[in-house]
Amino acid sequence: GQRLVHTGQVSYADDAPKIPAAAISAEDADLLHRLLAGDDGVKLVLRLSCETRPDAPGANVVAELPGRERPEEVVLIGAHLDSWDLGTGAIDDAAGVGIVLDTLRMLKAHDLLPRRSVRAVLYANEENGLSGGRAYAKNHAVELGRHVVAIEADAGAGRPEGFAVHAGPGGADRIAALSRLLLPEGPRIVEQIDSSDIAPLAPHGVPLLGLLQDESHYFDWHHTAADTFDKIDSRALAESAAFLAIAAYVLAEDEAVLPRPAPTTSTAVLGEAR
Amino acid sequence: GQRLVHTGQVSYADDAPKIPAAAISAEDADLLHRLLAGDDGVKLVLRLSCETRPDAPGANVVAELPGRERPEEVVLIGAHLDSWDLGTGAIDDAAGVGIVLDTLRMLKAHDLLPRRSVRAVLYANEENGLSGGRAYAKNHAVELGRHVVAIEADAGAGRPEGFAVHAGPGGADRIAALSRLLLPEGPRIVEQIDSSDIAPLAPHGVPLLGLLQDESHYFDWHHTAADTFDKIDSRALAESAAFLAIAAYVLAEDEAVLPRPAPTTSTAVLGEAR
Repeated sequence: GQRLVHTGQVSYADDAPKIPAAAISAEDADLLHRLLAGDDGVKLVLRLSCETRPDAPGANVVAELPGRERPEEVVLIGAHLDSWDLGTGAIDDAAGVGIVLDTLRMLKAHDLLPRRSVRAVLYANEENGLSGGRAYAKNHAVELGRHVVAIEADAGAGRPEGFAVHAGPGGADRIAALSRLLLPEGPRIVEQIDSSDIAPLAPHGVPLLGLLQDESHYFDWHHTAADTFDKIDSRALAESAAFLAIAAYVLAEDEAVLPRPAPTTSTAVLGEAR
Repeated sequence: GQRLVHTGQVSYADDAPKIPAAAISAEDADLLHRLLAGDDGVKLVLRLSCETRPDAPGANVVAELPGRERPEEVVLIGAHLDSWDLGTGAIDDAAGVGIVLDTLRMLKAHDLLPRRSVRAVLYANEENGLSGGRAYAKNHAVELGRHVVAIEADAGAGRPEGFAVHAGPGGADRIAALSRLLLPEGPRIVEQIDSSDIAPLAPHGVPLLGLLQDESHYFDWHHTAADTFDKIDSRALAESAAFLAIAAYVLAEDEAVLPRPAPTTSTAVLGEAR
């Protein structure tokens, strides 16, 4: 209701014409509807200056806390560095980057050096086709069999609620039990593949977790000019960081690893980023 | 919270420098505050293309339902045609224009021809200095002694709540009693001078009423790009039109007129429009 343009992405089937698309506000869409209901027809002139340019070099940022006993086994925690350029990307996905960095900070600050390595990956270019996530999957293919889980923080700055889980049989129950360490009233557990940076790991059978947070206001600001720092509730963000830190620690420390899912290709890899 | 710019007006004292002013969103103001709290100073480049040009001809639109017995006595009902140009002015003040027009329509539709004339005035240029209101006061000066009341509808499209009253002793009580015809639970009555189009009538001792409405959301949209048609709740608007119609009818029909206030100059005439 504030004439804010919520942008997004259009994906075309290979055999479909690439019709130019633009985002307009709800108010302007309503106006078009009212005009179209009339008898006079509507002639609309759109001047779009956007263009798709060839890819240019970028970089994922990787930092690792080497494991105490099995450093070659990896618990990956990820978020993405890029954002939709109308705002400053505070909730999508600077908040996730903060959660991931704070997880490493907390593990170090409390001298919690787990059995396996905890690897933070801050991905480049999630928004325009997951190319950072694809590059990671390609360049690290030889060690993905030793990635025991990959966790993504890309759901804003709200309070933690649970996880989207993609694992083998019994995996979701284990994640639910783990989540109750911070959410004793019961977490929200959804069995689905996280649709952002870590999706390209699905064909390699890596267990995937997507951090679920309170998204009551997420889509008020997501991909708009209003995705700015003032939307961050530092207390809620700290709780989500604590939640990820606990999950990463347990999964890196536990003797048993999560059951691996069958290799599959997620729709995110085929189509849209989040 | 939607990075919406709420614009307004700056008035300068005669002996003050006219420092350029611009409206920015709350988010951008927050950013400036954060930067200013740092040690590095802030250098801000503003490119403003706005300018104040000389006045150009415009017109008030006046329509009258002539009175049955005393057509020379006038109940004025007013609203303004212009709007802040970021949106389309749906709540400020197309809603008021609709309320005023609907009052005339209802009086005609129900064959309610009151004793005195009901004159609708749709003012030009309220926003930039009340020039429509000033011109009306100047051009109709000889008949303002026979204006028994002037009522303005410039508070949006919400439900009716009462009136801002500027009248002689006992006037507010009479308006409260009248308001209970549609608001039996009790109206909101404030004793102050309405600050828009009718303010230039204050020096002539005309009793003034400002329609008060539910403004819960008024300043979410006022003077922004989001002041568009979708913000209108047709039921609430119809209730406000009914309220103004009842008030105008009673004040035009009642044998007694409102006590006149002492001539005064409102701050609105000296300074800002609404």
